[in-house]
Amino acid sequence: MAKSPEQEHPVNSFGWAAKDPSGLLSPFRFSRRATGDEDVQFKVLFCGICHSDLHSIKNEWGFSQYPLVPGHEIVGVVTEVGSKVRNFKVGDRVGVGCMVGSCRSCENCANDLENYCPNIMLTYNSIYYDGTTTYGGYSDIMVANEHFVVHIPDNLPLDAAAPLLCAGITTYSPLKYFGFDKPGMHVGVVGLGGLGHVAVKFAKAFGVKVTVISTSPDKKEEALTQFGADSFLISKDPDQMQAAMGTMDGILDTVSAVHPLVPLIGLLKTNGKLIMLGAPDRPLELPVFPLLAGRKIIAGSGIGGMKETQEMIDFAAKHNITADIEVISADYLNTAMERLAKADVKYRFVIDIGNTLRAS
Amino acid sequence: MAKSPEQEHPVNSFGWAAKDPSGLLSPFRFSRRATGDEDVQFKVLFCGICHSDLHSIKNEWGFSQYPLVPGHEIVGVVTEVGSKVRNFKVGDRVGVGCMVGSCRSCENCANDLENYCPNIMLTYNSIYYDGTTTYGGYSDIMVANEHFVVHIPDNLPLDAAAPLLCAGITTYSPLKYFGFDKPGMHVGVVGLGGLGHVAVKFAKAFGVKVTVISTSPDKKEEALTQFGADSFLISKDPDQMQAAMGTMDGILDTVSAVHPLVPLIGLLKTNGKLIMLGAPDRPLELPVFPLLAGRKIIAGSGIGGMKETQEMIDFAAKHNITADIEVISADYLNTAMERLAKADVKYRFVIDIGNTLRAS
Repeated sequence: MAKSPEQEHPVNSFGWAAKDPSGLLSPFRFSRRATGDEDVQFKVLFCGICHSDLHSIKNEWGFSQYPLVPGHEIVGVVTEVGSKVRNFKVGDRVGVGCMVGSCRSCENCANDLENYCPNIMLTYNSIYYDGTTTYGGYSDIMVANEHFVVHIPDNLPLDAAAPLLCAGITTYSPLKYFGFDKPGMHVGVVGLGGLGHVAVKFAKAFGVKVTVISTSPDKKEEALTQFGADSFLISKDPDQMQAAMGTMDGILDTVSAVHPLVPLIGLLKTNGKLIMLGAPDRPLELPVFPLLAGRKIIAGSGIGGMKETQEMIDFAAKHNITADIEVISADYLNTAMERLAKADVKYRFVIDIGNTLRAS
Repeated sequence: MAKSPEQEHPVNSFGWAAKDPSGLLSPFRFSRRATGDEDVQFKVLFCGICHSDLHSIKNEWGFSQYPLVPGHEIVGVVTEVGSKVRNFKVGDRVGVGCMVGSCRSCENCANDLENYCPNIMLTYNSIYYDGTTTYGGYSDIMVANEHFVVHIPDNLPLDAAAPLLCAGITTYSPLKYFGFDKPGMHVGVVGLGGLGHVAVKFAKAFGVKVTVISTSPDKKEEALTQFGADSFLISKDPDQMQAAMGTMDGILDTVSAVHPLVPLIGLLKTNGKLIMLGAPDRPLELPVFPLLAGRKIIAGSGIGGMKETQEMIDFAAKHNITADIEVISADYLNTAMERLAKADVKYRFVIDIGNTLRAS
């Protein structure tokens, strides 16, 4: 018989878990494995709240297993390292993002694209090598193979750096891969939320022209002054959209709700690329003619490989890029989730695990 | 008052036109402009029948103007050239494809991508610089600015070369642009029709591995033996499709009917590209998750620029690539259209204009 989550491993751990699709989180005792030869164990200090966490606790993608401890923007300080660990030592500031394992032998893994490995093991709601369930960062301690751990440079505040582990790499990677990191480019960012505001910061750091495309006129001021976007389009204003037709080399679309693609395709130049980063739970409508008429591309991109994740963090440190966050205490979690569902957050909730998570 | 098609220009011409959306073609007298300084006039000898012609005569895309003379796979022999024409002389074997004009000044035109010029003038059902309607190649003579005319090398038979002007460039251009012309690549071709069979020939000439994906098991033999495809998948066979998951670098999708994309996306490797060449009249369903999970791309591609069209013809001549055709007489046109609607053609109808089009 399988052991209970609290008994299957030797290290006691504590966190918050969803027990069913209601969306409610509650205190949860479980356990972590002993630090293996290649493992890094760390005390979790902060964990960002990603929109995926909300999808997952409510089982909106249909593959949630309960109890489910969310959290894949995890930062903290190393407490123990395995005997074969080469890159980390006790006391290091570290982070773990969306994945904790992959096959390490397929073509994707060989090309530093563990994020596209068919056997990727996600940080939570996944089955690890040893057959046990993975639990995320809404918890007091974390342990992971060092390959899936990154260093957080000293000049980055840990709380505001946490969202880089998911929101950061999710936007940095496509900016690089699709060539939107070249000065002279004009890049659109659809949606100014957790992903979108970080996308604007990275794009500006690459020196490209950035236009934020949003349904909310009240985000204009922040987009332009706070994040340095060059212009702002209200997607529901046909005149504004018409005037911007054919002006963009690429667009990062961070919206995970179902929405029309035709107006966005229209914003692209010939050979322009629309990159989907959100995962709507239903198919979108794809009209083919607008793609044919300008050799345009719709692509998807999901996080990034471990090598690129470290590169992204180092780039962020060099350019002082972090997320704009609202730090919350652990007991505020359910309220935060309700607010996140209404997009009522600027721009990312981060749980102060170190100071507020109590097992009592 | 606008002059009639028969009187607006000085050169009498004769062809077959659709007069309404019934899909019926009938004899039609009209006129062509006098050969301008930069124009090439030629006697039409053959014209291919493209599936777009069928869409157009029935107004299935909603922008047909009648009378409409279809035909954009036009070949013949030069009869007159303007005083400033530099690249053609009387007697040359020439062709005109899908376009006869563009702005010649935008960024696309400057980059030899006249096919993506916002002011592209199509070979038929379009308005030319002078405000008159363009008429296609189901007619006895053609006149076009020399920039939009290509040479047909002597070793290519004119009848079987005609379809290269549309089907050829439509498949050659994306094979090159998306990098499917590198040995070691594995390319899928969906649909073994007019476009598909030429796509297979070009892809094999580039030295890549080709898999034909079709709903028709009876096309397997031809795909493998006649066109040299390496393998054949029946798209309705889930076992075959499952076994081929994640094996292809790219897919050219030539199907213009509404069809599911998920099985095709599944055939792609990480970073794989699905290129749409057909234009379904309704939007397709686009599930985003399968794109995210492998950084996959869906793109559109439409014909090619004039420089690349000549390059394609020269490549075809070098590799002895032509279309497999059924030559018909002009008075068989309506029957051919009925058969084309049922995909009952191997693999392209070509009208023997020179020998069978009679004005009587």
